[in-house]
Amino acid sequence: MQYENDILLRLLQGKQVERPPIWIMRQAGRILPEYREVRASLSGFKALVSNPDLASKVTIQPIDALGVDAAIIFSDILVIPEAMGLDYELIEKKGPFFHKTIENMEDVLALKEGQEAAEHLSYVYEAVAMTVEKLEQRVPLIGFAGAPWTLMCYMVEGSGSKTFYKTKSFLHKYPELSHALLEKLTKTIIAYLKKKISYGLEVVQVFDSWAGVLDKEMYKEFCLPYLKRINEAITEVPVILFSKGAWFSMDEIVGLKPNVVGLDWTLDPKEMRAKYGKDIIFQGNMDPTVLFAPKHLISSKVEKTIQSFGGNQIFNLGHGVYPQTPLDNVKHFVNEVRKFRY
Amino acid sequence: MQYENDILLRLLQGKQVERPPIWIMRQAGRILPEYREVRASLSGFKALVSNPDLASKVTIQPIDALGVDAAIIFSDILVIPEAMGLDYELIEKKGPFFHKTIENMEDVLALKEGQEAAEHLSYVYEAVAMTVEKLEQRVPLIGFAGAPWTLMCYMVEGSGSKTFYKTKSFLHKYPELSHALLEKLTKTIIAYLKKKISYGLEVVQVFDSWAGVLDKEMYKEFCLPYLKRINEAITEVPVILFSKGAWFSMDEIVGLKPNVVGLDWTLDPKEMRAKYGKDIIFQGNMDPTVLFAPKHLISSKVEKTIQSFGGNQIFNLGHGVYPQTPLDNVKHFVNEVRKFRY
Repeated sequence: MQYENDILLRLLQGKQVERPPIWIMRQAGRILPEYREVRASLSGFKALVSNPDLASKVTIQPIDALGVDAAIIFSDILVIPEAMGLDYELIEKKGPFFHKTIENMEDVLALKEGQEAAEHLSYVYEAVAMTVEKLEQRVPLIGFAGAPWTLMCYMVEGSGSKTFYKTKSFLHKYPELSHALLEKLTKTIIAYLKKKISYGLEVVQVFDSWAGVLDKEMYKEFCLPYLKRINEAITEVPVILFSKGAWFSMDEIVGLKPNVVGLDWTLDPKEMRAKYGKDIIFQGNMDPTVLFAPKHLISSKVEKTIQSFGGNQIFNLGHGVYPQTPLDNVKHFVNEVRKFRY
Repeated sequence: MQYENDILLRLLQGKQVERPPIWIMRQAGRILPEYREVRASLSGFKALVSNPDLASKVTIQPIDALGVDAAIIFSDILVIPEAMGLDYELIEKKGPFFHKTIENMEDVLALKEGQEAAEHLSYVYEAVAMTVEKLEQRVPLIGFAGAPWTLMCYMVEGSGSKTFYKTKSFLHKYPELSHALLEKLTKTIIAYLKKKISYGLEVVQVFDSWAGVLDKEMYKEFCLPYLKRINEAITEVPVILFSKGAWFSMDEIVGLKPNVVGLDWTLDPKEMRAKYGKDIIFQGNMDPTVLFAPKHLISSKVEKTIQSFGGNQIFNLGHGVYPQTPLDNVKHFVNEVRKFRY
């Protein structure tokens, strides 16, 4: 499809771009007053995720409000565990909570997987279709899924955690059971992404948000084989792989050859470029707290980041934008990137 | 002083040791039933920290229960902010909470510092003195302090956090104010450690628990200069510096030349040894969730870790032991290390 603003797709097709394309993780969210207004009219976050009309509405808001180069469908990584049979609640200011968690093989066997699970997510596909229509080819739409390990974290731990020690212990105690769960998750993620793509996504991002609690050895055993399968299965559109905190496995992540490798702020763009070459496209990696700084510091950090990547960069933060970030600073940030010329 | 078990001190003096000495972060704590019994008799964690008789009692428990090679005084890193004038509560299952946080220069100026602040911690010095007496020269006693940055995190954020985004934003917004606070913290930490050492500590550890939320550049500006001063000021006993998550600043941390560099589990002992040479003493670095695995896996991980360090290692975990760890596994772990011979 043709887009008014196609800078992201041009970069992904290996064409010349005049500046880095930019989008922001959590751009459709609490930083925007128009989002908070929609959200306030509903009983909770899940009511928004499961309402295709409103989900598509908030997905489009940052295109107007911020001028980013892509939309990312408003949703939640935990729709997959739910579609597999594990309901969750989102408790205000506390995060996700699962009443039932995965404890044994019976629990794993009871989970739906693949197509069968993905069929339960028609509200997401509908939201994608509605967003594509409402976008009127202004910018491309990105979709996403949580990585198998990150989804497993919530399904075993039952909630967010600083350490995910229960899930990590689970890997040590029950490696076979862990692989059985990760296998089912992988099949479901692939079916879900393929189905979503068919409704009009141009790019997908796989988030391994809790990669950083593991180490190189554990990441190799419990994460990389599944990420490899997902990356190889998704041939329809480019894949962005973002394993937050997995600095210790960067060689292997780059080795999977996703179309784009996401970097958090602890990784030095210059070193990454020197190590992995000029052809790889990186996404990232500004620390989101820089957006709380005075504007002239945001400007100089933007320029420094772009120079350090030296091209082949999708500009983004190294983590989702914090809801408390001054909106004016976020706008300034996007403008600075858009003004830049290589 | 002479100790029945002096293996830790022999290693620190550069003498031959037959195996790695071992102690465990949070060894005096909820993994031990005798600790939970003491704790249950009190109104809260702070009641235990501020009671020298009971604090010394629980400090000694793991020497008998686990057979570790050193005691570490039972206390809390947040006694320093409190001594400087910022009270806190410890809320059950939630963690520390400060009613007043640092917001501006007036707040920083109002804080006590150095000797004057350290004088408020007589209950800690008394606990050290009582522990030394009760230990009867069986093993040496370790003391600790939080690093300036980690203490600042709580003083600005007001509580624990996954991201400490408020404190990180504070660094960007108010760099001078941040340095003023870090300066006062540094002076207090030095005065506190020196005073504590005079009561009979043989080793001190400085914990930079939240190093990992920063990056190389921020760590260089806001952490390393203060760690350098603390490390240089403490000449009485060896210093262990443990900056958790600061893989990006290892060159600089090693460059400070503390007597021991603590490593978390994301760092590969073999790589660290190859990079920094055979003379540096490392402490670490087993992932604490390995202790939830079957015993034969704990044994093989212990052996692999010791082989990977190739000597000059204080065996420890890469983080505090989780309270839910099976006690029997912890005992097995300590025994396996003690049985090993180089």
